[in-house]
Amino acid sequence: MNNYVSDAVVRRLPRYRRYLKKLKDQGIQRISSKDLGNIMDVTASQIRQDLNHFGGFGQQGYGYGVEELEGKLEEIMGLDRTYNIAFVGCGRLGRAIINYLVGNEPIYKVVGLCDNRPDMIGTEIAGITIQSKEDFKKRMQRGIDILVITAPAVIAEEVAEDVAGTEIKGVWNFGHTELNIKGVKVINVHLSDSLHALCYYINHPD
Amino acid sequence: MNNYVSDAVVRRLPRYRRYLKKLKDQGIQRISSKDLGNIMDVTASQIRQDLNHFGGFGQQGYGYGVEELEGKLEEIMGLDRTYNIAFVGCGRLGRAIINYLVGNEPIYKVVGLCDNRPDMIGTEIAGITIQSKEDFKKRMQRGIDILVITAPAVIAEEVAEDVAGTEIKGVWNFGHTELNIKGVKVINVHLSDSLHALCYYINHPD
Repeated sequence: MNNYVSDAVVRRLPRYRRYLKKLKDQGIQRISSKDLGNIMDVTASQIRQDLNHFGGFGQQGYGYGVEELEGKLEEIMGLDRTYNIAFVGCGRLGRAIINYLVGNEPIYKVVGLCDNRPDMIGTEIAGITIQSKEDFKKRMQRGIDILVITAPAVIAEEVAEDVAGTEIKGVWNFGHTELNIKGVKVINVHLSDSLHALCYYINHPD
Repeated sequence: MNNYVSDAVVRRLPRYRRYLKKLKDQGIQRISSKDLGNIMDVTASQIRQDLNHFGGFGQQGYGYGVEELEGKLEEIMGLDRTYNIAFVGCGRLGRAIINYLVGNEPIYKVVGLCDNRPDMIGTEIAGITIQSKEDFKKRMQRGIDILVITAPAVIAEEVAEDVAGTEIKGVWNFGHTELNIKGVKVINVHLSDSLHALCYYINHPD
């Protein structure tokens, strides 16, 4: 399966997995691509095409084994292992995300926190002490898989310069800027993009 | 231009506009689809195809007028008007988003807030008083264009039932559930989907 997997396909995998998890929780054991497509509002052919990148999994006339496919998707995305994750920016957004991960996604282990606000440095979230940028720079060197940037754009750009050469493999960036870091995968999240898309739909009703 | 515009195209419009805004702020007056594609890491043909849905705008050999195209995209998405927006859920995530919108996106006017936590009811954010669910139900009836749900899934589903029949035209849902509300456009945001996609890339380096 060494074929090229487009970003669009990768972006759809988490959604497939979410729906399969829900079906599993409902006790459903198998589902056809047609029924899955109906629930997810995509075509059966899209589902088959997407999954074919990874080997297919479905059986003609049988459909997909829900639990099996969910497990397979977790494996493909690497959700069957754990990640050490650290946050730059411990304001409201950072805390909201830490809170969510700690409560719902145990595969992400928060191991480092950074914020430069004096009243935050030295305090704890989820048992981890918030470090100043200077101290965190040393912490960044080893043992962090994913860095989350929940700080303003200017800080995001500063931090990005320090990522190269560390063990960080991925950056999840909420800093309202598009970061490019050589050798490190960055996913830039622009929350208001989806709000703007919503406005488009409001102004173009069916 | 009454052709069908796919969700994928709509989702790309905010990104085009962000890049054009940045170019405009840098004083750049025009740009070819090739150069814009290079900056945005998409093909020139993709850009031309996407914009052709709305009339094209570029001139052969001249490229796009940056300010003109940015303005046109704002018009297309309806970002040249204002929206009354209300929040259900005034915890960390809700406050982070309110804070961001108030500081950066003045077209969204926060007009209503709801949270059922007793210590929050009656307090203010951005000059608006947080109402209990019961009081907010009346507030919801009129004068709200967009409802943001930054509350748990179970509350999201309850609120969804009350949206029909109000003036609400769009729901921006962070409630970790996929809402379907008849006659109302819902954009479901699953923050961790992009984190899971990031994990995929970490486990499949080039």
